[in-house]
Amino acid sequence: MRAVDIIIKKRDKGELTREEIRFFVNGLATGRIPDYQAAAWAMAVLLNGMTPREVTDLTLAMAQSGEVLDMSDVVKIAVDKHSTGGVGDKTSLVLAPSVAAAGVLVPMMSGRGLGHTGGTLDKLESIPGFNVRLSPERFSEMLSRVGASLIGQTEDLVPADRKLYALRDVTATVESIPLISASIMSKKLAEGIDGLVLDVKTGSGAFMKSGEDAERLARALVGIGRSAGKKVVAVITDMNQPLGEWIGNALEVVECVEVLRGRGPADLRRLCEELSAWCLVLGERTSDVEDARRLYREVITSGRALAKFREIVEYQGGDPGVVDDYSRLPVAARREELPSPGTGYVEAIDTEAVGTAMCVLGAGRETVDSEIDPAVGMRVRKKIGDAVVAGESLGTVYFNDGERYRQACERLLAAYRFSKERPDRPVLIKKTIGTPGGDE
Amino acid sequence: MRAVDIIIKKRDKGELTREEIRFFVNGLATGRIPDYQAAAWAMAVLLNGMTPREVTDLTLAMAQSGEVLDMSDVVKIAVDKHSTGGVGDKTSLVLAPSVAAAGVLVPMMSGRGLGHTGGTLDKLESIPGFNVRLSPERFSEMLSRVGASLIGQTEDLVPADRKLYALRDVTATVESIPLISASIMSKKLAEGIDGLVLDVKTGSGAFMKSGEDAERLARALVGIGRSAGKKVVAVITDMNQPLGEWIGNALEVVECVEVLRGRGPADLRRLCEELSAWCLVLGERTSDVEDARRLYREVITSGRALAKFREIVEYQGGDPGVVDDYSRLPVAARREELPSPGTGYVEAIDTEAVGTAMCVLGAGRETVDSEIDPAVGMRVRKKIGDAVVAGESLGTVYFNDGERYRQACERLLAAYRFSKERPDRPVLIKKTIGTPGGDE
Repeated sequence: MRAVDIIIKKRDKGELTREEIRFFVNGLATGRIPDYQAAAWAMAVLLNGMTPREVTDLTLAMAQSGEVLDMSDVVKIAVDKHSTGGVGDKTSLVLAPSVAAAGVLVPMMSGRGLGHTGGTLDKLESIPGFNVRLSPERFSEMLSRVGASLIGQTEDLVPADRKLYALRDVTATVESIPLISASIMSKKLAEGIDGLVLDVKTGSGAFMKSGEDAERLARALVGIGRSAGKKVVAVITDMNQPLGEWIGNALEVVECVEVLRGRGPADLRRLCEELSAWCLVLGERTSDVEDARRLYREVITSGRALAKFREIVEYQGGDPGVVDDYSRLPVAARREELPSPGTGYVEAIDTEAVGTAMCVLGAGRETVDSEIDPAVGMRVRKKIGDAVVAGESLGTVYFNDGERYRQACERLLAAYRFSKERPDRPVLIKKTIGTPGGDE
Repeated sequence: MRAVDIIIKKRDKGELTREEIRFFVNGLATGRIPDYQAAAWAMAVLLNGMTPREVTDLTLAMAQSGEVLDMSDVVKIAVDKHSTGGVGDKTSLVLAPSVAAAGVLVPMMSGRGLGHTGGTLDKLESIPGFNVRLSPERFSEMLSRVGASLIGQTEDLVPADRKLYALRDVTATVESIPLISASIMSKKLAEGIDGLVLDVKTGSGAFMKSGEDAERLARALVGIGRSAGKKVVAVITDMNQPLGEWIGNALEVVECVEVLRGRGPADLRRLCEELSAWCLVLGERTSDVEDARRLYREVITSGRALAKFREIVEYQGGDPGVVDDYSRLPVAARREELPSPGTGYVEAIDTEAVGTAMCVLGAGRETVDSEIDPAVGMRVRKKIGDAVVAGESLGTVYFNDGERYRQACERLLAAYRFSKERPDRPVLIKKTIGTPGGDE
């Protein structure tokens, strides 16, 4: 078999066999297939697509390109949640302790921010001492003792995905549903989980700008998961504005602790409840999602979820004192209000531009090598449908560097659009795909 | 400007600006743009195409990526011929001396064989001592003294094309009319010639299998040449069977000497005459192509073309004695007849398979690093429309290695198709594009 023949086949709109896909993926993982062949192949896949069967085979081949965790001797049933990425998207920090507190194991492996979206690992690392790298032994031990972990993907997992992912970012081959699906699902399959809840974002701050694309991706992901024998539910949620009120690593940790205390903004609370509830259903804690929502609310009001969060932080070397004293987290030296340039109602927010402005500020990465400033970020004071008068604050910007602040501000001001009429507020939870009772 | 944005634009079917194309091509030439980005871009170009304006800009940017020869102080007017490649395609060795003997300068720069096609440089190097690399000074001197040269492209010419060409071969991005056109024409523009005759092959042994594709390529090439202020004529010629009777490096040199003596097979003689005649028209030796054909025949019958060939060989360090004593060329140790598996008429020949069989024998390269055996090859005894009886010889195979011979034979036998009815013989010269009087 030759790599070039596999590229030719996909270039000419052919359907690759399972063997051809395995050959290519293994070649990628071992480095036997060079980057330039992988890049040409990825562009051909992006432009010519893949059948569902090809995507499933690609996912499985990638999942099997490295170590595949088997947690069956540690846990009876384990679930995870994955989000396709957004701005202010911080549910993992609430969900993992809540679901664990309600009795379902969550061996969560998260990523870092890239592009305009934030990453769970970066948020966690704003907690002094927090270590996102655990040895396999310590990871197993943590799961059986704490019931949840919040770690990064280990080096030995899905090497083919790591290579392809890095390459796609610099070869304009990110926006391919087959490649996105295989990347997401291969990582999750290699984790050895039984159930997976997907938060598929759609809107101006999501990779999938349109609802149709998001639904197509959600169905592709659910299909792959099922083919691999996993229980998968996908919730399509709004990303036309930041989730919650806070953006920025340490700032989002604070907001999550607030939600774990039963406080915080309604949209974030609602989404944490919904995603956690589906985790509890897939984790067989209860078969009814309404019961599951009640269970979630119960671990919040009882304080058990917050206690579990403290436990996780402590176990992973972080300072649990941050839970009761937010000033132990990094704090930005300066803050400024963002005066509204318009009067009327907030009609739309270019949320990707907001995310990019946060990157400029230092909250995210402009390149893979960028250093993150954990303290900087923004509190969003006006969201879609809110009334605003020119000069009134759209939000508070937290920063350490005046020049970066000016650049970020320019982008932020351009991101808001105003209207005279009050627009509808976006519906947060749009559709749920793959539930036991069908789509909702 | 970022390379990834240029890839995105082409991926999304956008039209690249001249500045974007220059940025990308210069990045390629200097190595600032890595191979994987070039590969993704090439695949996007292959699948999404380019406008004529983009192709012209790409060609000019590639031509200007390195040294551009200026021969205006050496010669008044210089012409070259380029073939898109075929099997037994050896006209350059006849054309250069004939056109020079008729008074038009031919600073010909040729390539090596790759894939199933032969290369002029490989053929020339079968002449003991022949040197295809001349210093720029010696090259100029040769042109003014001899009137023709048969050399390889110098290292400093079109570095962007050299990089992209090597990459395309291994990334399945060869078969793109924009990329093929830019590659061919950038090299010719950098040579500093005034006129160019293109031999665009079509058929089972050509890169362009269909007449429509060949014509599209021919028109693209003529268009680019004109945009760059050059006189260009493209002749679309048949490559559904090997040209002439002989395939193999030293064997083709012999056949060319025969044609220069006024002998040899009719198809090869005819094509040499036609292409040479257009060179004489573009070189302003005469404005009428019929006069030009006569001029060509005159330099052949007078022996002046053969004398010029001898002069070229001698000037480039080769043994001119080969012209009168073919045994001074490398000779294969063994020969075998290829018995026809069928009775009837030769209906079709998979000429690419014949070319590949010759590569297996050692006449061409399977990879860029392969060593060529100059002595091996084949004499084709039956061509399309010829009657044949099972067991009768289809051709004589010249070889040095029994195992390679067996492998080549298998491919050769599978390449012939027979019919009961006598099929039409292919028309050799199908169309001429870009002539002063319009297409012919």
